[in-house]
Amino acid sequence: MSSLRVALCQINTVVGDLDGNVERIFAALAEAEAQSADLAVFPEMTITGYPPEDLLLKPGFVEENRRALERVAQRSGSTAVIVGFADGHPDVHNALAVCAHGAVVGTYHKRHLPNYQVFDEERYFRPGDEPMQLFEIGGVRVGVTICEDSWITGGPVAQLGAGGAQVVININGSPMYGGKMAVRAEMLHERANESGVPIVYVNLVGGQDELVFDGGSMVVDTAGEITARCAQFVEETLVVDVETPDGVPPTGVFPLVSVSGATDHGEALHPPMAPVADRLSELYDGLVLATRDYVHKNGFSTVCLGLSGGIDSTIVAVIGADALGPENVHGVLMPSRFSSDHSVTDAEALAERLGIHHRTIAIEPAHAAFLDMLAPSFEGREPNVTEENLQSRIRGNLLMALANKFGWLVLTTGNKSEAAVGYSTLYGDTAGAYACIKDVYKLTVYELARFVNEQRGTEVIPESVIVKPPSAELRPDQRDDQSLPPYDQLDPLLEAYIEGDATPSELIDQGFEAAMVNRITRLVDLSEFKRRQTPLGARVTRKGFGRDRRLPITNRFGR
Amino acid sequence: MSSLRVALCQINTVVGDLDGNVERIFAALAEAEAQSADLAVFPEMTITGYPPEDLLLKPGFVEENRRALERVAQRSGSTAVIVGFADGHPDVHNALAVCAHGAVVGTYHKRHLPNYQVFDEERYFRPGDEPMQLFEIGGVRVGVTICEDSWITGGPVAQLGAGGAQVVININGSPMYGGKMAVRAEMLHERANESGVPIVYVNLVGGQDELVFDGGSMVVDTAGEITARCAQFVEETLVVDVETPDGVPPTGVFPLVSVSGATDHGEALHPPMAPVADRLSELYDGLVLATRDYVHKNGFSTVCLGLSGGIDSTIVAVIGADALGPENVHGVLMPSRFSSDHSVTDAEALAERLGIHHRTIAIEPAHAAFLDMLAPSFEGREPNVTEENLQSRIRGNLLMALANKFGWLVLTTGNKSEAAVGYSTLYGDTAGAYACIKDVYKLTVYELARFVNEQRGTEVIPESVIVKPPSAELRPDQRDDQSLPPYDQLDPLLEAYIEGDATPSELIDQGFEAAMVNRITRLVDLSEFKRRQTPLGARVTRKGFGRDRRLPITNRFGR
Repeated sequence: MSSLRVALCQINTVVGDLDGNVERIFAALAEAEAQSADLAVFPEMTITGYPPEDLLLKPGFVEENRRALERVAQRSGSTAVIVGFADGHPDVHNALAVCAHGAVVGTYHKRHLPNYQVFDEERYFRPGDEPMQLFEIGGVRVGVTICEDSWITGGPVAQLGAGGAQVVININGSPMYGGKMAVRAEMLHERANESGVPIVYVNLVGGQDELVFDGGSMVVDTAGEITARCAQFVEETLVVDVETPDGVPPTGVFPLVSVSGATDHGEALHPPMAPVADRLSELYDGLVLATRDYVHKNGFSTVCLGLSGGIDSTIVAVIGADALGPENVHGVLMPSRFSSDHSVTDAEALAERLGIHHRTIAIEPAHAAFLDMLAPSFEGREPNVTEENLQSRIRGNLLMALANKFGWLVLTTGNKSEAAVGYSTLYGDTAGAYACIKDVYKLTVYELARFVNEQRGTEVIPESVIVKPPSAELRPDQRDDQSLPPYDQLDPLLEAYIEGDATPSELIDQGFEAAMVNRITRLVDLSEFKRRQTPLGARVTRKGFGRDRRLPITNRFGR
Repeated sequence: MSSLRVALCQINTVVGDLDGNVERIFAALAEAEAQSADLAVFPEMTITGYPPEDLLLKPGFVEENRRALERVAQRSGSTAVIVGFADGHPDVHNALAVCAHGAVVGTYHKRHLPNYQVFDEERYFRPGDEPMQLFEIGGVRVGVTICEDSWITGGPVAQLGAGGAQVVININGSPMYGGKMAVRAEMLHERANESGVPIVYVNLVGGQDELVFDGGSMVVDTAGEITARCAQFVEETLVVDVETPDGVPPTGVFPLVSVSGATDHGEALHPPMAPVADRLSELYDGLVLATRDYVHKNGFSTVCLGLSGGIDSTIVAVIGADALGPENVHGVLMPSRFSSDHSVTDAEALAERLGIHHRTIAIEPAHAAFLDMLAPSFEGREPNVTEENLQSRIRGNLLMALANKFGWLVLTTGNKSEAAVGYSTLYGDTAGAYACIKDVYKLTVYELARFVNEQRGTEVIPESVIVKPPSAELRPDQRDDQSLPPYDQLDPLLEAYIEGDATPSELIDQGFEAAMVNRITRLVDLSEFKRRQTPLGARVTRKGFGRDRRLPITNRFGR
């Protein structure tokens, strides 16, 4: 067996930060060079960050990205570099460049463009159709591909294998959802078996708006078994010797670009593999990274949030403290005439255990003022949800005022179950910059709370927060289950409707109770207008509310 | 010359309203039949409404649309019907069906799928690749196409012409922007000249979320001259005899489906052509239709809005009154300690001239309460934009409370210049359901105001509203030009940046002043987070804020 020393450069790029991304590339490249790597591999669209969306429609942006690529090429030496960039004008390609010895020695254009779920690549890119090439790096014939290319049976990976590649590189911008690591591993297993070559899969890490790129870069051998793996959710430059099959004849199907010959690296590098996180740990770490990156990449350091003593604001406070440090989190208790004693004591206990700042601003003066101001208009009308929304909006205003005055961001605390049925007040509890748990169903919020306490071996989250019946406390003795089915009935129905794309009549056929189906699906549809005006948040399931699910507001289907 | 009697059925469908759309088809079909039309032609995706977006990802939705199509087919008689629908499973096509004598006699799948600007058709549809057919209707060989198909030089229209079609039908869901009528006419002129056949272009009319379909259906003859045209912005069933070239031999290139033979219709129908509206009239009518359809299609009848006495809320009140009737519009004056006398008198004068309801709720009690509640937190800090936002948010809360209590929708009043630079308060003046003028630059708002007064021959809009310097009145003696360049400098820069997709350095090269470019483009980028949380509104330019312009919030380009 010959081998290729590859650095998996799992870096955290920032969209549009061309200079910054070049610096990040240089830093990882220096690590790769220090370990005498033959090749340093970076994630998809390294130069631009991913996904740059409509920045790609600006010809000047593509031009500046090309100049940034030239700087990377000039910096490259005997360690070859594979970086992603946007290539071409007026047709733009999702591309990678192979750089070495101060120059771009070859490029490749992504051939298969995802245009589903969160992806819109047909909007931006032309698929590549140039003949493929092989690159002789460290004496090994290397084939190159980008992301979706490796998901196609009989596609570019198989073709490169049949054409004499001894290893295939695949660079990615692959966002997480629960269980995605296993899906990727299975895909790579199939591709390696199909092509008979090892595959080096390098993924992006970091949060970009609603997307969470989890890293987890890996190498599979010719049998498809994983032989190296980076951790998820952290930047890492993992240098590993990839064993490549000897006796694969150069077929001559693809032109061979000579980059560098074989080097004797001495003892082989087989660093220990990062373990794969379990479901809740992965979810929690994803939420933390997404929150940290949204706040920091947008130039902020500090957040505030309303602390109600309920489970949702509690878990968001915990995530915020882990993401930003407890000293950068401000909890605000905003009790009303309807707040229970435990809502205040639970919130205070949490703040103290977490070590975050907290303050209390009772909303009664503004509440009373609004009711007086509206009294002439509301004369003769019974109190209804209007008065409940008022309280929530006063709280939203207070949080925004603090954020405006002190330069903080507001974290919102709604979960996916609430976002689905619109159990929230627009401009009230939905007001803020980042909705940390908007893609986490309520039952999973409870699981996360127990996970946090178990993981730390201490009751950071007061048990009373976990066991009390959920309530918005916007009227006397209010409880969620007065308005909604119990969450153990609601969440499965929501998942079948949202992730499962079922119609109401199909849900009834699946065994959900008809009246509940009609009521809940109607609530989900009617709440689309709210979701369009609420902040984005980490997408951690197969279908989040956001670019994943594009339903019209004006929509009478099923009604 | 032989001729074909065609009904251009320019109807206003509703997305997802399968049963309702079938009823709308039946009503127009009855009109077509009453005038002995050979063929009734409906807009793109008639059955589903357009665009149905992710409803198309629900197999059950496509199935139900197919059943609705069967009802249309069963209803069809000797007047053939062309309707748009979604065809196929699991691959879905943007399709049309030709129905006659109780059955579907043929289908066609759109071959060219737009996936740019506001369109995402690659997300939903497979392009058609079945062999094309001709339909003998009224003794004339008819070719059929869908929307984008007719924009392609040498595409389906030319192929059908070369293959013996005597007329080509093109069904559309084409949204407006200023000047689009002329662009369409030029395209049809080219296509007719290229193919040598007349073209029947039927467009959708109506508002669907941010899109405004303006209708303006037309017929061009073999020379590409317009011979029939529907009005814009109204439903219309226009029956016209389309003269078709004789002596075009049936080439046999395409199979011919026999539907109906020639009938003697007697005297030819050549109804007068609707005039093409001028720029401001078209814009105004588009805004009115969009607002009416958003409100009505979402099940509401009545709106409220804040009346500040400024030009923006004034024009929105006028639009609202025209869209919904003045009796369904409630203006709310919400003066503060900083409001000028003229802001109140101007708003009252407007309300009275329009005949809309109005009421006054002074915000001082809530304003004072919030300042008191925040005083301990804000101790030692100077007043800044925080206190200004607070007033705007109190107003937003009041409007939402009225809307919640009385079942109204809130219209927001921000213009495109403000939306661009974020000169607005999130959850304050941006709070509401529909942003009528969000795609209208400030200078155009002034033009619209003068247009309204001229058109009515009376000063509906008080002259003082038009001539006073714009101000948010959130601090003493505030004026927009303290924060922003004058609008005659700002608007052209914004247009070059937004519609023109220029980079900051390109804008400087174009002659815009460097400091202004850097400051304003930065404001536009930083305001992306606000735009994501503001209501949708009518898109009336070539690039609106919405599905047209998809920029990341986390974005360091140019910074």
